[in-house]
Amino acid sequence: MILAVTPNAALDITYEVDELVPHQSHRVTAVRQRAGGKGVNVASVLARMGHPVMATGLVGGAAGNEIRADLEARGVVARFVDGGGNSRRTVNVVSAVHGDATIFNEPGPELTGPGWQSLVAGLDSLLGEVAATVVVLSGSLPPGLPDDAYAELVDVGHAHEARVIVDADGAALRGALRSGPELVVPNRAELARATGAQDLAVATAALRELGARNVLVSCGADGLVLMPEEGSGWHARLPAPLSGNPTGAGDALVAALAAGLVGGSTWQQMARDAVTWSAAAVLQPIAGEIDPADVARLARQVLMEVR
Amino acid sequence: MILAVTPNAALDITYEVDELVPHQSHRVTAVRQRAGGKGVNVASVLARMGHPVMATGLVGGAAGNEIRADLEARGVVARFVDGGGNSRRTVNVVSAVHGDATIFNEPGPELTGPGWQSLVAGLDSLLGEVAATVVVLSGSLPPGLPDDAYAELVDVGHAHEARVIVDADGAALRGALRSGPELVVPNRAELARATGAQDLAVATAALRELGARNVLVSCGADGLVLMPEEGSGWHARLPAPLSGNPTGAGDALVAALAAGLVGGSTWQQMARDAVTWSAAAVLQPIAGEIDPADVARLARQVLMEVR
Repeated sequence: MILAVTPNAALDITYEVDELVPHQSHRVTAVRQRAGGKGVNVASVLARMGHPVMATGLVGGAAGNEIRADLEARGVVARFVDGGGNSRRTVNVVSAVHGDATIFNEPGPELTGPGWQSLVAGLDSLLGEVAATVVVLSGSLPPGLPDDAYAELVDVGHAHEARVIVDADGAALRGALRSGPELVVPNRAELARATGAQDLAVATAALRELGARNVLVSCGADGLVLMPEEGSGWHARLPAPLSGNPTGAGDALVAALAAGLVGGSTWQQMARDAVTWSAAAVLQPIAGEIDPADVARLARQVLMEVR
Repeated sequence: MILAVTPNAALDITYEVDELVPHQSHRVTAVRQRAGGKGVNVASVLARMGHPVMATGLVGGAAGNEIRADLEARGVVARFVDGGGNSRRTVNVVSAVHGDATIFNEPGPELTGPGWQSLVAGLDSLLGEVAATVVVLSGSLPPGLPDDAYAELVDVGHAHEARVIVDADGAALRGALRSGPELVVPNRAELARATGAQDLAVATAALRELGARNVLVSCGADGLVLMPEEGSGWHARLPAPLSGNPTGAGDALVAALAAGLVGGSTWQQMARDAVTWSAAAVLQPIAGEIDPADVARLARQVLMEVR
């Protein structure tokens, strides 16, 4: 069982409009809404791929109720903790003329100590209840928390002998490293923000100084570089980049890594699966979706190099 | 008692962003939300001015619950009918750089016969219960209704011997006229859309052909023209236009007319009050707000001409 934690879950709202013109009034022609947040997408992808997974995290208010209801409707097992304030929403305005989205991200409710402590206690209690061997911590921290809040969740995972993957950015990623999570998965930009270094080797070394162990750096169309603590590193990629929807590709990558850790895969196999699942997610119009048939087909195309 | 009906109530969400750039991702720096819709604003203005009023209409889903909760928090008495689908939201993106808003209006839930019939029955039941002598019907009709749906609500008002004001646009306004509401209040553009005529006298005559009785046409900075069925018409205006927030000015105008009908004011007094309340609303940053001190001050400045 994998536990996918989203401390700052979101209700993702998509508006279709004919054309977005600043400072004008727009008739929205279609409204879709869906539970979102990186850990929610991880759980959704794992569920689609047939892996036992449970989504948890903090939600609250009317938006929190809608997040819960949507996950239930999608058949994603979820046990969220009530975090007080109204969960953040994201509004994605898609223009029929241009195709791409204009996005408005609410910051989410300012979290106070008790709200965070209910997540810490909720995670501890869930791990005592379900036999989760891997915990995934994904996405931004709610506003108002110290940078090292993730370290506390890593510690809870370790107390239950779970292996922990952290997918976070900047200060939240740096703060998590103190507790030595099994695996961190920055992309190139996140790695640079967390370390101040552009060079991959220099930045990875800097991350290790802070407590990182196994490091996987995703490089967009150039695939990924996995640098384990022990043994050889791997560069995995597809022969040609896929065009599609990159939102959620990183979450599918993390889902593959969590499944690999649970199943006892080698790092080489995990690097291959991570590229494959990530690419299959690019082919889906919505984050959190994946087609197992795409995964099977794309797995045969991955190029692996020792690094 | 005035009953203010909003068949298509909304949850108005305001996002502050630094600058709106199409096809980019934006961090929302502040989120506000508030019950909205034209009849909700009418009720809110009447409550601020100390007039007994109740808001009603159709709401539904999570957004409907937030509309109810906001009105309760603001002290506006409300008894909404549950209309099934999730109430529409409007997202107003205000840019710190430009100041003005970019607006996204959800269409609202498609309404089926039973949803509408619960509003008709709900209004009938409310009018049996509270001693309302004036009913205000405001704003757009939910999608899926026939153009003459407002006529049915006008009939319910008349069955309880209430006088009915209709503030609607285009086909919904035309459709209401069949039942001969006491007063209709189009602005110049709405009058033109409802009749196809640009000239005020020609358009008003066309509206009367369809069943209109007393007609008030609001003309923005040029004030308003009130043309009663009997007696002289009035042109009322301020000596100079006010700068401010025009959103909700029309609803304050309607609120003044409703208060005048309840209190037995003359048409002349109602025209004066309508200009005054409308101008006072322009001075407020939010639709549905009004300061009685502004009303008292501005009332002395209104210029009245027989027309």
